[in-house]
Amino acid sequence: MRSPDELRALAEEGLERLELWPQLEGQAESVRYSLEVGGKRVRPVICLATAEAAGAEPEAALPAALALELIHTFSLVHDDLPALDDDEERRGHPSTWKQYGEAVGILAGDALHAEAFRLVTGYETTHVARELSEATLGMIGGQWLDITGTDDEVSLHKLKTGCLFAAAVGLALWAAEVPVAEQGPWRAFGDELGLLFQIVDDILDGDGYVERHGIDGARRLADEAADRARARLAEVDADTSVLRSIVDDLAVRTA
Amino acid sequence: MRSPDELRALAEEGLERLELWPQLEGQAESVRYSLEVGGKRVRPVICLATAEAAGAEPEAALPAALALELIHTFSLVHDDLPALDDDEERRGHPSTWKQYGEAVGILAGDALHAEAFRLVTGYETTHVARELSEATLGMIGGQWLDITGTDDEVSLHKLKTGCLFAAAVGLALWAAEVPVAEQGPWRAFGDELGLLFQIVDDILDGDGYVERHGIDGARRLADEAADRARARLAEVDADTSVLRSIVDDLAVRTA
Repeated sequence: MRSPDELRALAEEGLERLELWPQLEGQAESVRYSLEVGGKRVRPVICLATAEAAGAEPEAALPAALALELIHTFSLVHDDLPALDDDEERRGHPSTWKQYGEAVGILAGDALHAEAFRLVTGYETTHVARELSEATLGMIGGQWLDITGTDDEVSLHKLKTGCLFAAAVGLALWAAEVPVAEQGPWRAFGDELGLLFQIVDDILDGDGYVERHGIDGARRLADEAADRARARLAEVDADTSVLRSIVDDLAVRTA
Repeated sequence: MRSPDELRALAEEGLERLELWPQLEGQAESVRYSLEVGGKRVRPVICLATAEAAGAEPEAALPAALALELIHTFSLVHDDLPALDDDEERRGHPSTWKQYGEAVGILAGDALHAEAFRLVTGYETTHVARELSEATLGMIGGQWLDITGTDDEVSLHKLKTGCLFAAAVGLALWAAEVPVAEQGPWRAFGDELGLLFQIVDDILDGDGYVERHGIDGARRLADEAADRARARLAEVDADTSVLRSIVDDLAVRTA
C-alpha cells in the first residue's frame, strides 16, 4: 500500500504532466497557474487511497483524482472573484483573477471545469462522469447557499465541501469497479470524512462550528466524526490502513 | 422526417421538462431564467436533424442537443458578465447577472455547464461527453482570443462559434451510432455550417467579415460556405433534405 505522501506525489506528477486541450490557446497559462499555486491535494489523495484499498492500482483512479482536483480548483478560482469572496491572494500568490484579470479568471475556472470532464471521459463507464457532475452541481448549490445567506450551515457545508469529499470516495469506487451492493460503507466513510474536514477547518479558522458549539464542542464533534469514519472503514473487508491514517491526519491537522 | 420547426418544438419541450439536480438549491432559478430567455435553438435543431438524417429517432439525440444548448447558454451568461462583454440585456430581457447579481450570474453559468455534462452521461458511450468537453474547451479558447485581442479572426470564430456547431453534428453522429469511418462528410458539413452562421452573423451586425471583405465580399463568402455545406450533404447516402433546408434558412436569415 502506498503512503499518503506517495499518493500525493503521484497526483502532483499527474497534474504536471496533464496535457491541456490545444484549442484552449493562451487560456492554458492561467489554467496551469491555478493548478500550480498548489494545495494539499487532499481530495485526489483520498481518491487514490480509496481505489488502492478497494483493490485497484492507484493509477486506475488517477484521471478521476485529477478531475476532482480540477473541479476543486475551478471552484476556488471562481470563489476568489471580486463578485464572490473578492480574494486577491490564494496560498501566498495572487489569485488567478488578480494575476490575469477578471475576464481570464472567469474563463480559467470554466476551462478547469471542462478539462475535468474531458479527463473522466477516458473511463469506459459513464458513472465516473455522472458522479463528478452531480458532485459539482451540489458544490455549486452550496456556493449559492453561501453567497445568498442561510441559517442552515450544516446543509451549506454538506454541499459546498462535502460533495467533493464524497465524490473522492465515490469516483474511486467506480474506477476500482466496486459493485454497487458493496459501496455502502465506503460512501458512508466519505460523508464522515467531508464533515471531519469541515469541522477542523472551522476550528482552524475560528468560525462556523466553533461559533455555534465553542472550541471544545467543535473539537468533540470533530473527534466523533473521525470515530464514525474509522468505524465505517472497519466495516469494509479490505486493508484500509492508509485511509485510517488519512483520517488520523485530518483530525489533528493544523493547516 | 420532421421539419426544423417540429424539431425546435421538441427541443423547447425538452428544455421545459429538464429536471435540474435538486442540490442546486435556489441556484436553479437563475439556470431556468437563462434558458427561458430563449433563442432560436439553432444548435439543438441541427443536432436533432442530423440524428434523424443519420437514421436515428431525434429523441435519441435529445439529451445531447439539450446539453449543447446548455453549454451555449452558459457561454452567453458568462460572456454577458461585466468583466467580459458587460451586457445588461439579452434578447430583450435583463441578462442573468443583471437580473440576479454578478455572483449568482457566475454560478448560473457554472451550473449550466455541469448540468450539460450530467445530461450526456445518460449515453452508454463516453464519446458524447468527450466531444462535448472538447468543443467546450475550443469555445473557451475562442473567448480567450476574443478578450485578449487577435488579428486572426478566422481562428477566433472557428473556435468561439465553430466548435459548438461542429459538435451539433458530431454529437448527433455518436447518438445515432454512425461508424467513425462514415463520419467524414457529415463532420465537414458541420464545419461549413458554423462558418456560414458566423459570416451571416457578421453581415447582420456589419462587423467581422464585412469589415474585412465588404458587404458584397462577405455575402459571396457566405454563399460559398452554403454551397460547400450542400455539397458535403450530397456526399452522404441519406435523406438530408431537412438539413439542406436548414442551410438554406441560415444563408438568408435576417435575425
